[in-house]
Amino acid sequence: MKVLIVHAHYEPQSFTTALKDQAVATLSAAGHEVRVSDLYAMQFNPVASAADFAERSDPDYCVYALEQRKGFESGTIAADIREEVAKVDWCDVLILNFPIFWFSVPAIMKGWIDRVFVSGRFYGGKRFYDQGGMRGKRALLSFTLGGREHMFGPQAIHGELETMLRPILRGSLAYAGFTVLPPFAAYHVPYVTQESRQQILVEYAGRLNRLDDLTSLSFPSLDDFDDRLYPKT
Amino acid sequence: MKVLIVHAHYEPQSFTTALKDQAVATLSAAGHEVRVSDLYAMQFNPVASAADFAERSDPDYCVYALEQRKGFESGTIAADIREEVAKVDWCDVLILNFPIFWFSVPAIMKGWIDRVFVSGRFYGGKRFYDQGGMRGKRALLSFTLGGREHMFGPQAIHGELETMLRPILRGSLAYAGFTVLPPFAAYHVPYVTQESRQQILVEYAGRLNRLDDLTSLSFPSLDDFDDRLYPKT
Repeated sequence: MKVLIVHAHYEPQSFTTALKDQAVATLSAAGHEVRVSDLYAMQFNPVASAADFAERSDPDYCVYALEQRKGFESGTIAADIREEVAKVDWCDVLILNFPIFWFSVPAIMKGWIDRVFVSGRFYGGKRFYDQGGMRGKRALLSFTLGGREHMFGPQAIHGELETMLRPILRGSLAYAGFTVLPPFAAYHVPYVTQESRQQILVEYAGRLNRLDDLTSLSFPSLDDFDDRLYPKT
Repeated sequence: MKVLIVHAHYEPQSFTTALKDQAVATLSAAGHEVRVSDLYAMQFNPVASAADFAERSDPDYCVYALEQRKGFESGTIAADIREEVAKVDWCDVLILNFPIFWFSVPAIMKGWIDRVFVSGRFYGGKRFYDQGGMRGKRALLSFTLGGREHMFGPQAIHGELETMLRPILRGSLAYAGFTVLPPFAAYHVPYVTQESRQQILVEYAGRLNRLDDLTSLSFPSLDDFDDRLYPKT
């Protein structure tokens, strides 16, 4: 397999970084090819703007998705976006590795999605969900959070974790056509012992060695909706 | 009322910007005080990092939330964060005005939340949800999206809009203690006529003039959970 790990943490010694390093080691040892986009190290620009387009389809009024599509087709979109799209094109499996900030990804990773999931390649027209541009590729979230496991669930204080992550799991990855694997969550990380952290790394390595055995998450199929995207019932 | 509008759009002529301008006009005409943080115009830095702290509690290992709390208390946190926190402190109503990017806020606004919702002031320890630091203040999302209204709902292709927005509505605003008003959504904006856009602006103005009549969204109360945050049942 070819695996792209997109990693976002501001502290190189963090446990989130250790998860990334574990993934590189485990996947490489299993004979897979691994590339890493370390967004903080790259000082990745997360702000989608007209500056991403050297040439503009409409120089007077910027519609980001439209300029993205045209700029990607013509090769005039910003070089950092082109490079990241090429990495995603290359990979079979995309791993997003990050600390939960406000029940979501940190802004630098949100901006990676905003800028790199380009219209025309990742989605467009009726090409989304199971018709999305990335169909055939798998995606996995691996993340750390401060909360404990019992704080997530139907009756728990924060509700279901997968519901809280819906904009990423469904609204971004599944929307773009990725087969989305169950996320790997490292709970309570700032407060646990070194032994617990070591155990989490072992669990994560086990998970990475069993990717083919995982049941992917379920999302809508365009087959169930009509041309105007009403449910067929 | 004192109203802070945090606005994020890369195109000054956009309809999202027109919503912001409408809010300024309507609220000012009604005698309210209005301030605007125009994140693109400010070139707001959305990337939470160790660079936000002139002095570090631990210079060898950065835990962002910990340094945030200490840096905010000591006044050594980055000046742009201090200024934005002061604006939120000042306001009675916070409006986040943005285009939906990947079923969420654009990265520049995610980073405003990441950096400005400082530990110790917005939340901390058992101070979250109805005990959050911003209790007594109201918050409203106003946003534009490409999808049509029928694409959101229990049986719709994207599911419930409020579920898709849960990380912002519940995981950020309600978590920090804000009373969260029902969001104002402008659907299908890139494709509708000027007449439709004008109608949306009229509806939005009406909404802003009736803020006191709106029923806020419901979220968990810490009263329903024990000291370890298990449901009391």
